Amino acid sequence: MLASIRCPQKAKADFASLWELWISISSPNPGAGKMFREKRYVLVCTNEREADHPKGSCTNCGSLEVRERMKLLLEEKNLKSRARILATSCMDVCENGAVVCVMPDNVWYGGVRPEDAEEIVEKHLVNGEPVERLLIPEEMSGLSLFG
Amino acid sequence: MLASIRCPQKAKADFASLWELWISISSPNPGAGKMFREKRYVLVCTNEREADHPKGSCTNCGSLEVRERMKLLLEEKNLKSRARILATSCMDVCENGAVVCVMPDNVWYGGVRPEDAEEIVEKHLVNGEPVERLLIPEEMSGLSLFG
Repeated sequence: MLASIRCPQKAKADFASLWELWISISSPNPGAGKMFREKRYVLVCTNEREADHPKGSCTNCGSLEVRERMKLLLEEKNLKSRARILATSCMDVCENGAVVCVMPDNVWYGGVRPEDAEEIVEKHLVNGEPVERLLIPEEMSGLSLFG
Repeated sequence: MLASIRCPQKAKADFASLWELWISISSPNPGAGKMFREKRYVLVCTNEREADHPKGSCTNCGSLEVRERMKLLLEEKNLKSRARILATSCMDVCENGAVVCVMPDNVWYGGVRPEDAEEIVEKHLVNGEPVERLLIPEEMSGLSLFG
């Protein structure tokens, strides 16, 4: 454990490991100690490109608002222990912006607008069902089409 | 399909759908059309905090170099169709920086240094085996420990 001190917060991490171990042993919920692996991670592309770029960009399609809306919804619905919203660099399915991917489910949504955020949160993150109408079609390759 | 025109690149997306459909029908590799769903996505936290912040930050632990090294390796080894490196916002396991998560495998690495990049690429992305020595311990909760 001490060999892992590679950067300043590592000393804290060693303390944290012990603290977490205590929590996981003493917790009334034995699953609590594995929480981060049990969360869903909602990847929202926040890549920017100039307005006339042939690939477009997810931010030009409103992805920043999608991200903000989803973060607020998780806060409001007390779901932060079940899911986390991540801003990401380009996921290379640009023709489907705004792109949102729910991991580890590997479910990909395209053309997502801020007003779709609630449906994704309620249906997918709470009830575990993909929002069919927003799924990126199976035949899409994710290869860059526009050079 | 035309109803999905919500932002400028949507018209291109409609064309792209047809083009992709043609590729998926005419391709000698019928799986080619599903490529983006078959990739691994390597999430590298590139969150920044001030140097004396109690949570530390993955960039302070060298995550930008980890990301660059992994991107170069995918390029050199011609693996870009199999995996993609994504920079992300904070994944909330800050005490394990630099944090790297391989999705959809849901495999989490902590304390990753630039010199670990090649092992993750070769062992995990090429051979499908997690790099045991870098796994974040099971007992970690991913809850913020430092306020």
